[in-house]
Amino acid sequence: MYEGPVQDLIDELGRLPGVGPKSAQRIAFHLLAADPADVGRLQDALGRVKEGVVFCEICGNVSEQTQCRICRDLRRDATVVCVVEEPKDVLAVERTREFKGRYHVLGGALDPLAGIGPDQLRIRELMARIGAQDITEIILATDPNTEGEATATYLVRMLRDFPGLTVTRLASGLPMGGDLEFADELTLGRALSGRRTV
Amino acid sequence: MYEGPVQDLIDELGRLPGVGPKSAQRIAFHLLAADPADVGRLQDALGRVKEGVVFCEICGNVSEQTQCRICRDLRRDATVVCVVEEPKDVLAVERTREFKGRYHVLGGALDPLAGIGPDQLRIRELMARIGAQDITEIILATDPNTEGEATATYLVRMLRDFPGLTVTRLASGLPMGGDLEFADELTLGRALSGRRTV
Repeated sequence: MYEGPVQDLIDELGRLPGVGPKSAQRIAFHLLAADPADVGRLQDALGRVKEGVVFCEICGNVSEQTQCRICRDLRRDATVVCVVEEPKDVLAVERTREFKGRYHVLGGALDPLAGIGPDQLRIRELMARIGAQDITEIILATDPNTEGEATATYLVRMLRDFPGLTVTRLASGLPMGGDLEFADELTLGRALSGRRTV
Repeated sequence: MYEGPVQDLIDELGRLPGVGPKSAQRIAFHLLAADPADVGRLQDALGRVKEGVVFCEICGNVSEQTQCRICRDLRRDATVVCVVEEPKDVLAVERTREFKGRYHVLGGALDPLAGIGPDQLRIRELMARIGAQDITEIILATDPNTEGEATATYLVRMLRDFPGLTVTRLASGLPMGGDLEFADELTLGRALSGRRTV
């Protein structure tokens, strides 16, 4: 163990996800030798996040104001809402440049074993939004894993009763640039059942 | 890109060694959801390191006081000094529980391409120490790579003129628990030339 503040910093860094003891040590010694101004900037960034990040009151995405940039953008189609698990999923969909609608961030996926039920997600807010706004399509873009699929299935059941609302799910299939030979059975099965006429 | 403080934090974290954009994002969202007290502790640890860590005036190791725990420990043999590159190497040697002498931390290894010459390392301090104290053995424990070997060779030449001083180098050879078949030629060659009668 090192003496004093260096060990404290290594301990704190080691608590971050994906940072093991060796990485924590490496980062700590990097910061020890770094320009104090750089360390100060990291410290300030932590402070601002600690003081509380604002979440958009409409969609739940991280935001600078009470409403996020996407919800404020009047050019975006408010009738189509893409439902995702996390703010990083908004970013992933935005990167495709294919989607011009709005988002709804659930804040996770159903996971009863981890104590995450419908009340822990922003499902009630989604229902209220559909009731109040003129929404015609909900795209379920939760992750294609157990929790994400369960969440999508749950939402399909909840959204069934809204008249005139189309509920869609992102297509599952072979990843682009992939190799059929290396696709797992589940993915290949989904690709087969979701085949389209060309 | 995210809005506001979250992106700032992701940017700052992404500048740390070994933290890529994905890890930075993951850590940032972890901190967003974490207890503010945890974030505060990391912030404080950064602050204390930024204010300046004390280095031992004798050996150059990170320290809480002007002299480190090892240099203050009178039970440790002051006549044997183990010369290492970095504070983390002190820790590595200490973990063996085989060494009861003192240390000297160079602060790196000779690397002319990176602009690190003898003046950038604590070599002058080592010479002064040998001149002033009653030191009988210097163990060169720099890394067994190009820079570390060059540094050891340089130090051997510098230390040659001290009468009654033994200079030793850590043994190179097969790592314990390893497999002869998988040893690289250089390591196996060193193990052969360094063979001992049993």
